[in-house]
Amino acid sequence: MKDTKKQTQLSEIGEFGLISRLTENIELKNASSLKGIGDDAAVLSYPDKKIVVTTDLLTEGIHFNLMYVPLKHLGYKAVVVNLSDVFAMNATPRQITVSIAISSKFSIEAVEELYSGIHLACEKYGVDLIGGDTTSSLTGMTISITAIGEANADELVYRSGAKVTDLVCVSGDLGGAYMGLQLLERENEVFKVNPNQKPQFEGYDYILERQLKPEARGDIRELLKTLNIKPTSMIDISDGLSSETLHLCKASKVGCSIYEEKIPLDKQTKDFAEELSINPLVAALNGGEDYELLFTVPLASYDVIKKEFDITIIGHITPESEGANLITSGGSVIPLQAQGWNPLMNKGE
Amino acid sequence: MKDTKKQTQLSEIGEFGLISRLTENIELKNASSLKGIGDDAAVLSYPDKKIVVTTDLLTEGIHFNLMYVPLKHLGYKAVVVNLSDVFAMNATPRQITVSIAISSKFSIEAVEELYSGIHLACEKYGVDLIGGDTTSSLTGMTISITAIGEANADELVYRSGAKVTDLVCVSGDLGGAYMGLQLLERENEVFKVNPNQKPQFEGYDYILERQLKPEARGDIRELLKTLNIKPTSMIDISDGLSSETLHLCKASKVGCSIYEEKIPLDKQTKDFAEELSINPLVAALNGGEDYELLFTVPLASYDVIKKEFDITIIGHITPESEGANLITSGGSVIPLQAQGWNPLMNKGE
Repeated sequence: MKDTKKQTQLSEIGEFGLISRLTENIELKNASSLKGIGDDAAVLSYPDKKIVVTTDLLTEGIHFNLMYVPLKHLGYKAVVVNLSDVFAMNATPRQITVSIAISSKFSIEAVEELYSGIHLACEKYGVDLIGGDTTSSLTGMTISITAIGEANADELVYRSGAKVTDLVCVSGDLGGAYMGLQLLERENEVFKVNPNQKPQFEGYDYILERQLKPEARGDIRELLKTLNIKPTSMIDISDGLSSETLHLCKASKVGCSIYEEKIPLDKQTKDFAEELSINPLVAALNGGEDYELLFTVPLASYDVIKKEFDITIIGHITPESEGANLITSGGSVIPLQAQGWNPLMNKGE
Repeated sequence: MKDTKKQTQLSEIGEFGLISRLTENIELKNASSLKGIGDDAAVLSYPDKKIVVTTDLLTEGIHFNLMYVPLKHLGYKAVVVNLSDVFAMNATPRQITVSIAISSKFSIEAVEELYSGIHLACEKYGVDLIGGDTTSSLTGMTISITAIGEANADELVYRSGAKVTDLVCVSGDLGGAYMGLQLLERENEVFKVNPNQKPQFEGYDYILERQLKPEARGDIRELLKTLNIKPTSMIDISDGLSSETLHLCKASKVGCSIYEEKIPLDKQTKDFAEELSINPLVAALNGGEDYELLFTVPLASYDVIKKEFDITIIGHITPESEGANLITSGGSVIPLQAQGWNPLMNKGE
């Protein structure tokens, strides 16, 4: 929000006026999107496919802090976190609905900025915005997004299919989003003390982007398809590797061994963790918001998977009786614990 | 919430514990609900049908006031308002997702009370709860529900199909929900002054129920099917008859004449309006939250429709150039105005 721009109060144009402004340029791209915004409901057509549906609710002060998250990034990220869940089903996202509740402190321009990020994500992932709700709240902003995707029945991948000896794989690298958040929070504290001091982000563009503009790993779905590998189980990493691994093991009724030294960490993640005297592994295991994919593949895929630059084999599936464990570099066996980011416990007022 | 019951703080069981408690007894009833809660996304199967999707976001202090809305009723109503949109497409609701954000002032028992209402509505309307998100907010409660329904392609009814000479019909009666809200607000004011005085609800059970426990008119969809009448256009009345009529006329590019004396009002609506010296017609036209269906049918259906006790013909469609008008009992022609309940203007802080 630039102060030089004219800011229009929401009350000047009302709900229907706002909806018109936010949705007037929407063009539906997917053949399955028969009818988008403008009726009591959107209409979809999926003659031969299975449909997947996922939803997330983000609240100000818990999931995002408008002190240091630009609205455009927030809109983009709110879409991405939902698409990530669709990709984690090995499905292709096609539609989203977006509902927002905003207090009157927000101007129309601010809401348009949020929507510009939403539209950008829709554009990038080829997803249609087909409906939603725009309303007010007494305090703060809430964003609720539901994503709808499609897959052939034989393509779908659940959390529950991991088998003993399967390889545990992860896309990209982990812990970056958490370290990016630490960076933003540090600079915000500095800003509070001295508003004239410029934030020190140099050299940390990658972890900043991991936090502010994460991407959903639809490319991994495509890559695995190309490699002719169908994961036996899959989940997206929104709450940290520990928590997601435990979800996957519980649903599949298996155990696992994850090797500390195999967990992929970016150099910036490690550097900034060192600067703050944090173990970067903690960021990977319990930090969350990386939106990488955690999945298992049959052992027979080893030779193919290990060649892939963007996929790391971090362990293997064991019998349930052995539990889900982290094997440290020193060879210690530590049970994984769900210390994932828990919005009901950690940050609630 | 009874004070005698033990109240458990949300932080004691965390997000996953809460989700388990809220969802452990869910059984999927619809064949199209392949996979519900427990993975990254729910999975639906609709081989030969069109799917409709609608979503609503409700915020504390704007859409509901926990001072006088019991949580169970709130849960029920939050579902119903979404199902009403599905019925307004002439479709059958099949699944919902429910996301809630709650501040730590709520106990688990309070959230379970809310969910008991959600489950009751699911039971009553044969709808499956297939997913959602449970998270915290810094202040207040937010509920976001997405409903998914199905219809054959030739059954769907949009807002845009009304033709000149079509009859304008409405189900049930109007204005009751608004008068029920006035009653609740009056008694709440009395309570604030004297907490020992019992609320005076006698004789007003109907308008109270219209406000607290509205129903979605799936029965009207069934009735019309039985009568072999397919509406040419349809919308549900969430914002008041004026606003919805204008939506329908705009989408259909037509005008209409609505006759004041034909607008169905219940006796309790009229009685309480008189008590408060309010014109009950204002409650019907601009009050909102009645969740009745407003629809148009071909003139040829007149003889069949007029026999139906629960459907009232309130006017007819005219050319667009004539505008959307209310014809008063005295014969005056007054353009309808969208003074509907606007959450961004009326009640925002």
